[in-house]
Amino acid sequence: MITHRCAERIDYDGSQLRAHWILRRFAIAGDALVAFRGACDVLDAEMADLADLGGPGIRGSEMLHFLMERFDDDGMRCAVLRQRLLSALATELLVERGHRTIRRGDDLWFDGRKLSISIATRSAVSTLFHFALNVSNRGTPVPTAALDELGVDPVEFADELLARAAAEEESMRIARAKVRAKEEA
Amino acid sequence: MITHRCAERIDYDGSQLRAHWILRRFAIAGDALVAFRGACDVLDAEMADLADLGGPGIRGSEMLHFLMERFDDDGMRCAVLRQRLLSALATELLVERGHRTIRRGDDLWFDGRKLSISIATRSAVSTLFHFALNVSNRGTPVPTAALDELGVDPVEFADELLARAAAEEESMRIARAKVRAKEEA
Amino acid sequence: MITHRCAERIDYDGSQLRAHWILRRFAIAGDALVAFRGACDVLDAEMADLADLGGPGIRGSEMLHFLMERFDDDGMRCAVLRQRLLSALATELLVERGHRTIRRGDDLWFDGRKLSISIATRSAVSTLFHFALNVSNRGTPVPTAALDELGVDPVEFADELLARAAAEEESMRIARAKVRAKEEA
Amino acid sequence: MITHRCAERIDYDGSQLRAHWILRRFAIAGDALVAFRGACDVLDAEMADLADLGGPGIRGSEMLHFLMERFDDDGMRCAVLRQRLLSALATELLVERGHRTIRRGDDLWFDGRKLSISIATRSAVSTLFHFALNVSNRGTPVPTAALDELGVDPVEFADELLARAAAEEESMRIARAKVRAKEEA
Amino acid sequence: MITHRCAERIDYDGSQLRAHWILRRFAIAGDALVAFRGACDVLDAEMADLADLGGPGIRGSEMLHFLMERFDDDGMRCAVLRQRLLSALATELLVERGHRTIRRGDDLWFDGRKLSISIATRSAVSTLFHFALNVSNRGTPVPTAALDELGVDPVEFADELLARAAAEEESMRIARAKVRAKEEA
Amino acid sequence: MITHRCAERIDYDGSQLRAHWILRRFAIAGDALVAFRGACDVLDAEMADLADLGGPGIRGSEMLHFLMERFDDDGMRCAVLRQRLLSALATELLVERGHRTIRRGDDLWFDGRKLSISIATRSAVSTLFHFALNVSNRGTPVPTAALDELGVDPVEFADELLARAAAEEESMRIARAKVRAKEEA
Repeated sequence: MITHRCAERIDYDGSQLRAHWILRRFAIAGDALVAFRGACDVLDAEMADLADLGGPGIRGSEMLHFLMERFDDDGMRCAVLRQRLLSALATELLVERGHRTIRRGDDLWFDGRKLSISIATRSAVSTLFHFALNVSNRGTPVPTAALDELGVDPVEFADELLARAAAEEESMRIARAKVRAKEEA
Repeated sequence: MITHRCAERIDYDGSQLRAHWILRRFAIAGDALVAFRGACDVLDAEMADLADLGGPGIRGSEMLHFLMERFDDDGMRCAVLRQRLLSALATELLVERGHRTIRRGDDLWFDGRKLSISIATRSAVSTLFHFALNVSNRGTPVPTAALDELGVDPVEFADELLARAAAEEESMRIARAKVRAKEEA
Repeated sequence: MITHRCAERIDYDGSQLRAHWILRRFAIAGDALVAFRGACDVLDAEMADLADLGGPGIRGSEMLHFLMERFDDDGMRCAVLRQRLLSALATELLVERGHRTIRRGDDLWFDGRKLSISIATRSAVSTLFHFALNVSNRGTPVPTAALDELGVDPVEFADELLARAAAEEESMRIARAKVRAKEEA
Repeated sequence: MITHRCAERIDYDGSQLRAHWILRRFAIAGDALVAFRGACDVLDAEMADLADLGGPGIRGSEMLHFLMERFDDDGMRCAVLRQRLLSALATELLVERGHRTIRRGDDLWFDGRKLSISIATRSAVSTLFHFALNVSNRGTPVPTAALDELGVDPVEFADELLARAAAEEESMRIARAKVRAKEEA
Repeated sequence: MITHRCAERIDYDGSQLRAHWILRRFAIAGDALVAFRGACDVLDAEMADLADLGGPGIRGSEMLHFLMERFDDDGMRCAVLRQRLLSALATELLVERGHRTIRRGDDLWFDGRKLSISIATRSAVSTLFHFALNVSNRGTPVPTAALDELGVDPVEFADELLARAAAEEESMRIARAKVRAKEEA
Repeated sequence: MITHRCAERIDYDGSQLRAHWILRRFAIAGDALVAFRGACDVLDAEMADLADLGGPGIRGSEMLHFLMERFDDDGMRCAVLRQRLLSALATELLVERGHRTIRRGDDLWFDGRKLSISIATRSAVSTLFHFALNVSNRGTPVPTAALDELGVDPVEFADELLARAAAEEESMRIARAKVRAKEEA
């Protein structure tokens, strides 16, 4: 899995959550996790989660976005597990810095307010997920928390989360390769 | 996934990490996550992790054990993801109670000392993992932390972690079923 | 697998055989098998079976429809096996009531006349199948048999078939979890 | 899938339900379904179903055995579906000959008495199932029904069931190949 | 896998590389490898390989085309392996006739010039690949080699390659069925 | 996939073809392809191919061995495809050096004599294959060809084949990630 933080701002409207967007935008071919900053305003036509249709909208003036695409023939079961694990890694990173963040499923909460959004889906050739944290509370349609009120630098946070995700991936690769099977009694 | 906390003590020696132990012991058929208390002393012949062979041993006088078995034809990739997610849930539960626990892969740490052990493996018919937290520091072969020094009640902790794992499982089931695929641009 | 019989009539035109129709219509998220009554007239654009294009059409003034959707990452091989098994369950149910029904593949026959239609396919996120029995012979494009000439009450039949399908699913879940593997000689 | 009826008698003790028994015995390489007659007395060590251990035993003086092995990397979910479908085919064949046989899961019943036994399992390289019908009621540990009291000739029955299983397999192969996917609305 | 050489010319524009084209054109249902001769001029909208967009084009006045479609629920990993193996078989066939052909990935080279084109992709219901050799160098957008300058008869070459691909498939089917698993030490 | 050539001689008796031998011997964790020189004399108990039992034996006084192990949850279908592809790569490498080698399945032939042996199998946690070329004709039980009579240096050959296998793997990884799916007409 290749990780990459894009220094340039990219506004997210949901159209980024599709096959080969990472390849076309960053010329990265293969399983990848990328991060970038930008506004968020997901178009109805781009909403993957049917539960979001007709809702308050998915918006924010400034968010830190993470996008993963994988081509490994795994199904949605694996995709959702990976999404949850990245959400957990983000929670742990905030907690270790002293911010009492709570994760429930793929949502992060701080002080009873929503800190993140996320969705996992698939394309015809890959599985994908988007996970994003508010950098600012401006422009969000529900009561939210944001990295800026916590004093968390998004760039530094992104680099650390990418590094931890890569480390977790590598440790899982090794975990799979060094256990012997257990026979039945 | 059926969850069950066994009130009776069971000493863990690694032989429990095998196909159908849950079925034989608790008459639970199918995907399950069970919890129980007991000593831990893993026999060499039962060690699944080749990296543990010849090491300091896997021991403790009193631990809180979690054992998962699944029959869903998923491979080791899913099994390790599930193991990591349960480790993350345990970390989050401790952190929410004010204990600054750190997760790295499948290991939990408190105050620089190891709080947990874990291994994921497979049998001929299922995938399996064991995850256990020290209840006491007595009898452990390396510097450890334990739930009793944190003042965490193992029974109440087990019930809450089982409930959260079941809730996460249910939320992932629903997450897979309510997203539409994204077309390529 | 959630089963549900819809009391309201729904005319089937093939557009129901698609991802999330069950979720949108019945607010059921996840693997599900639903039943409903209604006319049948499959639009060309909605025909999944290429062999039906240009044929006599798929029509009937009154049918009993069963629709299954599953999100378990299984492929078409499993989907077709499940379709055949539901066809067999329907056959058995009729036979047990004294109606000499014959199954060949996914088709049921009575007295040399076609009693049912069925197709299994997939969407980008799920596998699906439709299985329907004539309630009346009116409006069918080929010689057919129908539940009403057999004196079979569609509502009662639907409830019993849904119950048997759920029971078969549960018995298969348990069957997978209680067998030990066999070693090679 | 290759089908074969062995004219020679083979007594079944459970050791036949293992990887490559069909290859070693009949020199058939690959997915296969074979049939043969013989007594049945399953050794405890060969019982695949844990629920049978300590039970009344799996025995009969004369049975008609069907054994399937597949090497197609499908898991137990497919194996159990295939087992159920063969059980359904056998039921249909008896019913079409006028014998009011009832199937529940993988068991066939006639007149409230058990007509068959079956188990699906896996080896390290394949999935397998055994399905057998009593030819005689002699030597069975529970009240049973048998083909001889129905006046069913086992040889002719075996040939017809093998033929139908092969036809169903072929029709499923074609069914998978001629449907187009359905887009989401 | 069914193999078929079409005697009629078919000009290839990329639209043939889609689900069920083989079924619709040749009435072959199921896994198949077909061969035909014809010009090649791939429309932009039909290019599967994103790396080809905006490139010199994929063209030739006369090529020998091979098209495979499979419905076996395998993913892209298998599809690409199969594509490489057919490329290797084509290379071997040329080499055995004395033409020093070199394969690099899915490309064949002769005398430093490109002899073939290939792409593997998937549809919603199947995996697919196209592999084609230049019969003539006319109309190609880059320096190419062609079967006619080698004196290779395309018809005879196609028949032999189809036969070898079928033989390799059959030998792989048997290879999977006759090995026993190896236990861990 | 990690590649490694071991400078030390290792005599191959079949016991190397098992889970984690590469990990235990070379401390390489994960998907790997290793090469080494040594005699070959496969013990009956270690023969994976049932067709070899009771045959002339699998022996040679000096061979160049390649061993692959993968932990990616792929089944035997992929394992055999990978084995064939490595056999093809070896053939191509010899041919490019002017040696008219012929591949049939997983066997290489030179001048009508057998140049190689190979088997693909699986363990409880991985898929594996062994592929080996004769370095010398001494000690082989059938008429063989060998690298030394071709004047091929085994060390240099091994390094080049490992490099080509790694390059093919990388090119397949990229191939899977840069194609878009094709819609049905």
